[in-house]
Amino acid sequence: MSNSFGKLFTITSFGESHGIAIGGVIDGCPAGLKLDLNAIQAELDRRKPGQSKIVTQRKEPDQVEFMSGIFEGQTTGTSIGFIIKNTNQKSKDYSDIKQTFRPSHADYTYTKKYGLRDYRGGGRSSARETANWIVAGAIAKQLLASIKINAFTSSVGSIILNKPYQDLDFSKTEGNIVRCPDTASAEAMIQHIQKIKKQGDTIGGTITCVAQNVPLGFGEPIFDKLHARLGQAMLTLNAVKGFEYGSGFEGTKLKGSQHNDAFNKDGSTKTNLSGGIQGGISNGMDIYFRVAFKPVATLLQKYNTIDSDGNALEVQGKGRHDPCVVPRAVPIIEALTAMVLADFYLLNQVTKL
Amino acid sequence: MSNSFGKLFTITSFGESHGIAIGGVIDGCPAGLKLDLNAIQAELDRRKPGQSKIVTQRKEPDQVEFMSGIFEGQTTGTSIGFIIKNTNQKSKDYSDIKQTFRPSHADYTYTKKYGLRDYRGGGRSSARETANWIVAGAIAKQLLASIKINAFTSSVGSIILNKPYQDLDFSKTEGNIVRCPDTASAEAMIQHIQKIKKQGDTIGGTITCVAQNVPLGFGEPIFDKLHARLGQAMLTLNAVKGFEYGSGFEGTKLKGSQHNDAFNKDGSTKTNLSGGIQGGISNGMDIYFRVAFKPVATLLQKYNTIDSDGNALEVQGKGRHDPCVVPRAVPIIEALTAMVLADFYLLNQVTKL
Amino acid sequence: MSNSFGKLFTITSFGESHGIAIGGVIDGCPAGLKLDLNAIQAELDRRKPGQSKIVTQRKEPDQVEFMSGIFEGQTTGTSIGFIIKNTNQKSKDYSDIKQTFRPSHADYTYTKKYGLRDYRGGGRSSARETANWIVAGAIAKQLLASIKINAFTSSVGSIILNKPYQDLDFSKTEGNIVRCPDTASAEAMIQHIQKIKKQGDTIGGTITCVAQNVPLGFGEPIFDKLHARLGQAMLTLNAVKGFEYGSGFEGTKLKGSQHNDAFNKDGSTKTNLSGGIQGGISNGMDIYFRVAFKPVATLLQKYNTIDSDGNALEVQGKGRHDPCVVPRAVPIIEALTAMVLADFYLLNQVTKL
Amino acid sequence: MSNSFGKLFTITSFGESHGIAIGGVIDGCPAGLKLDLNAIQAELDRRKPGQSKIVTQRKEPDQVEFMSGIFEGQTTGTSIGFIIKNTNQKSKDYSDIKQTFRPSHADYTYTKKYGLRDYRGGGRSSARETANWIVAGAIAKQLLASIKINAFTSSVGSIILNKPYQDLDFSKTEGNIVRCPDTASAEAMIQHIQKIKKQGDTIGGTITCVAQNVPLGFGEPIFDKLHARLGQAMLTLNAVKGFEYGSGFEGTKLKGSQHNDAFNKDGSTKTNLSGGIQGGISNGMDIYFRVAFKPVATLLQKYNTIDSDGNALEVQGKGRHDPCVVPRAVPIIEALTAMVLADFYLLNQVTKL
Repeated sequence: MSNSFGKLFTITSFGESHGIAIGGVIDGCPAGLKLDLNAIQAELDRRKPGQSKIVTQRKEPDQVEFMSGIFEGQTTGTSIGFIIKNTNQKSKDYSDIKQTFRPSHADYTYTKKYGLRDYRGGGRSSARETANWIVAGAIAKQLLASIKINAFTSSVGSIILNKPYQDLDFSKTEGNIVRCPDTASAEAMIQHIQKIKKQGDTIGGTITCVAQNVPLGFGEPIFDKLHARLGQAMLTLNAVKGFEYGSGFEGTKLKGSQHNDAFNKDGSTKTNLSGGIQGGISNGMDIYFRVAFKPVATLLQKYNTIDSDGNALEVQGKGRHDPCVVPRAVPIIEALTAMVLADFYLLNQVTKL
Repeated sequence: MSNSFGKLFTITSFGESHGIAIGGVIDGCPAGLKLDLNAIQAELDRRKPGQSKIVTQRKEPDQVEFMSGIFEGQTTGTSIGFIIKNTNQKSKDYSDIKQTFRPSHADYTYTKKYGLRDYRGGGRSSARETANWIVAGAIAKQLLASIKINAFTSSVGSIILNKPYQDLDFSKTEGNIVRCPDTASAEAMIQHIQKIKKQGDTIGGTITCVAQNVPLGFGEPIFDKLHARLGQAMLTLNAVKGFEYGSGFEGTKLKGSQHNDAFNKDGSTKTNLSGGIQGGISNGMDIYFRVAFKPVATLLQKYNTIDSDGNALEVQGKGRHDPCVVPRAVPIIEALTAMVLADFYLLNQVTKL
Repeated sequence: MSNSFGKLFTITSFGESHGIAIGGVIDGCPAGLKLDLNAIQAELDRRKPGQSKIVTQRKEPDQVEFMSGIFEGQTTGTSIGFIIKNTNQKSKDYSDIKQTFRPSHADYTYTKKYGLRDYRGGGRSSARETANWIVAGAIAKQLLASIKINAFTSSVGSIILNKPYQDLDFSKTEGNIVRCPDTASAEAMIQHIQKIKKQGDTIGGTITCVAQNVPLGFGEPIFDKLHARLGQAMLTLNAVKGFEYGSGFEGTKLKGSQHNDAFNKDGSTKTNLSGGIQGGISNGMDIYFRVAFKPVATLLQKYNTIDSDGNALEVQGKGRHDPCVVPRAVPIIEALTAMVLADFYLLNQVTKL
Repeated sequence: MSNSFGKLFTITSFGESHGIAIGGVIDGCPAGLKLDLNAIQAELDRRKPGQSKIVTQRKEPDQVEFMSGIFEGQTTGTSIGFIIKNTNQKSKDYSDIKQTFRPSHADYTYTKKYGLRDYRGGGRSSARETANWIVAGAIAKQLLASIKINAFTSSVGSIILNKPYQDLDFSKTEGNIVRCPDTASAEAMIQHIQKIKKQGDTIGGTITCVAQNVPLGFGEPIFDKLHARLGQAMLTLNAVKGFEYGSGFEGTKLKGSQHNDAFNKDGSTKTNLSGGIQGGISNGMDIYFRVAFKPVATLLQKYNTIDSDGNALEVQGKGRHDPCVVPRAVPIIEALTAMVLADFYLLNQVTKL
């Protein structure tokens, strides 16, 4: 198991969806950072379930409790321990899956790899873990106060927001329950999710994230290029199947003469197909990337599967699940981005004399 | 700088394109592995420049010299040091770029981040570094002898190989200079690259990689999920702009009922949209993923740029460069895949009692 | 801050002496280990304060609460989160030191390095942290059930236990409050500590630790030699000023012909001045080492010091402190030893094919 | 195998005593450091064999060749690769030990742990590796130009330099072949080594090291306390059996009222039994520590041992070996100290806002 992320600004996390608590240790945050604890809780509230008709109806307060590392409102440079208690475990919801492997879940691989698994909910593979990242990311955001990180839903199924991010007003993202800053697209996405939900089915989508005001110099080649670490972080998130930055997959179709970003005299570039990163190092332009989410594997339909003895069986899916993870993943993407940037911010302090 | 990759099976590398040598240290390879040194050199030969009309015409022997860690034909468990001498540096080729920043290169970001750069060739940001990875990957391949790793060119610009990998004969990949196992597609790709090359331009493309016979259990959640580490590795490679595995970006458009992989009684799955990885852990099915490459930034055309004082100037691109990196990147993608899998193979030894 | 220890079997810890709780995350423990939770608590009870007349009279239950990673009595291979609540903080005891730096404490260096410190008790520099290590070490002990680790007090001030460890009955160590397995020496040590305590003073001492039945092969040269990691671990413990293993400092006076350990035919050695480690790798013989503790810096006397403005002042030491840390450090030394050995046990699984 | 050391300023090394070359990769050195390459070679020359009548008569030029990371006389921030060719291998010298295990060497443990070993010389366990550390340490010294690091021989066998370091003139250390700054003691030590050498025997000793002008703040509690990392580094060196800093083992006999270092008004201390480190962090006072070396295991006498089949046999020791490693270890101790301090210098840059 690898439950640590980051080189200087790090999180080491723990917790199963139906254990006593989740939590972690944030290490490497410099001393002297005045923390707004309400802002941290507000980020957790953005992620928490039960907030709208298009997400899971589970109710969890997700209240973070800090155990250490903060004194008289400031970080002390020591490790920051925290827990988030699990208050809404309904073990009965899951008892019927004790012996069965849900298709396209981690049930099967965890059981075979470790020899046993905590079968209550997703155990360690549950996306509940992402609440821990929100905490670390919220602190990272405060460390990087001048950097603006905005993620938003850019597609749900085949409903795609086809506008460049420069034409969007990020302040509108939180104004609708699907977290798409374009009102018309948001409405279409919401209706689509509701339709899918009624079918007891689920749907995938994408999130676009834009980081602005990132100073030049973030990223540590060769093996910790900025986009490589961003990619690793995003692919860590449950249900993510792909990552692209700048021109991404579409850029493969271009010629170099079309793709190169010509310089302005001040070192900024006239275009930004590079996505704000050249040679693995931020160049001061906007960083933007896109993340692909598969549809949630848990269906509220009948489906066929096998049990731990290899017997085929038919199961009726039930419980409280998200028909589409994308809206709730928006603050998580931002948190992961902040964690990565905070680490590179610190690493960049010791780059040169 | 972060010049190490891997947790147990690791490489730490060094080298500039026009320095004395590149090389590295491979640490963590178990003792007792009988090494076929010719097979390692053969992988380097696959990557080396100057081999066909569609790649750079530079000539470099890229002969690896092992310094340590191998005794009487076997690994000893000690670190394996190696160098590859640079023999074909033509510093004059690059002297004119000493004061200029090439658009969409790392010249600008390296200079600003570090305060200076080795301006001969790409310096440390040169793809010459990838020869080091080939060495580590070739050893990893021998460590994982039962695993089959096959990468191939799946698109060049808008010319796309539209067949599922199951319909391809990987033995044909090395049969043509673009490394596409489908003869008709290969021919079209080659012609396209030649056309682009005549324009002094460059073109992007994609590589698909398939790893077969990977045992169940590779991958270390939460933060070292198998696909997250594969993604990080691929995004480390020069010019890569995106990574997707399994159903990837297209999978975002599907419903869960379409996307879920139903089990067979033996735990294998009827479909494999998961791409052989569930919950970050290999499930025994084929692992497959796709990597996006932007067009090479170095053009053999006139282009506008700035110098280190911010003066605008027009430059005539020259030298020996690849019009499309994709063909030469095929063995590199395989090497990176092998490095990642070797690390997880070792980590998986200590997963359970 | 570096709050993680170990490479595969790791602990990441947090907590100040007067915060809400201390705790940590134990990562890398293999799945399938049946844990005896009472045995873990029993180790904590060995360390906890207030148990005899020669240690601090603070009372803390030091009850460990596991949050994750254990299911139906077994480790699951996921990270093990735990907390130990602080129940006996008396902030008033320490309020008078808010502005003063206690001589030979960490007060001054923490304040200057971090710009602020949690001045309640020792904050993060408090030996309360060692309770976290006990938890990790107790799990490590269960992972290494066949290895016997026995530490004991081998000197208090100038009162030295002058017997080879082979002549001692380790089962007697817990039979007296100073944790010395030799009854006569123990009595002398206890009386000496009591005398020192009456003076409001403190005294140093040494602990010897013996690890038996350690398999050949633990230790990872070059930089993670077994004794180097043991040394690092021991020097991490508060008040430790020195570490020696095998023949140690006395061995420097010997000639090679006296010091070399001749082989028996089975590879064991007739003598063991090597201390069970050769070339940084355990050789199957007993591992033994000795750890030096300075006298506790906190005195219950008047002493001179400075405040944060550099003003000289006289302070009357008070509170509840150990006159000699050595007795309570015995289980901590064992825990650290177990942590180190557990890590090398796992690392040694991937040494050779 | 663990062949990397350091967190930000790191070395990853390779090489066997009788392979083609030893070498390594130094990563994390900030860009813009003007390097004096002659000073680096001068440090290697201090360590190299064959320089006096009391050390091994092997002749090796130990010429370092830098491959990368240095451009126009400055570090570029990229990894610094280097090799030192092995020029004086006489494999015949060692062929007779192919099947035998030398007592108190690493022969036996390496063979059993890895299943095979490079039996030419000590292979990877040879102290030849320390030449790599000299290179890294010499660069670290230049990075830390204002810090003065002076090591010296403080005992050979029972001949002990009984003066506080403050009474010594470090400029005299290099003035004699045993590297003891006290002329009378040096003479006695040299005569003692010569006597031992004539017997075909070897002798142990100690080195004391003093680091002055170390800024306050070096050291990263909890697990990377400055003295813990120094201890780990020193214990990594071949033949080292013990480490103590400040008052060390003798300090265990003192009372707290004797041991505490009273403050001056400026935060410096009147005494320095702490050895310049409090709570794991440098306090600005001199750092000093002592390192214990066992006698070299290789004797030029007849001795009894076993072969790889467990047969007893008598062997006549021969070859060119040091009768006492201490004189040649002096620059190595300095190099290790510099490496540790350089790492903490960088880590301390990101401690607080």
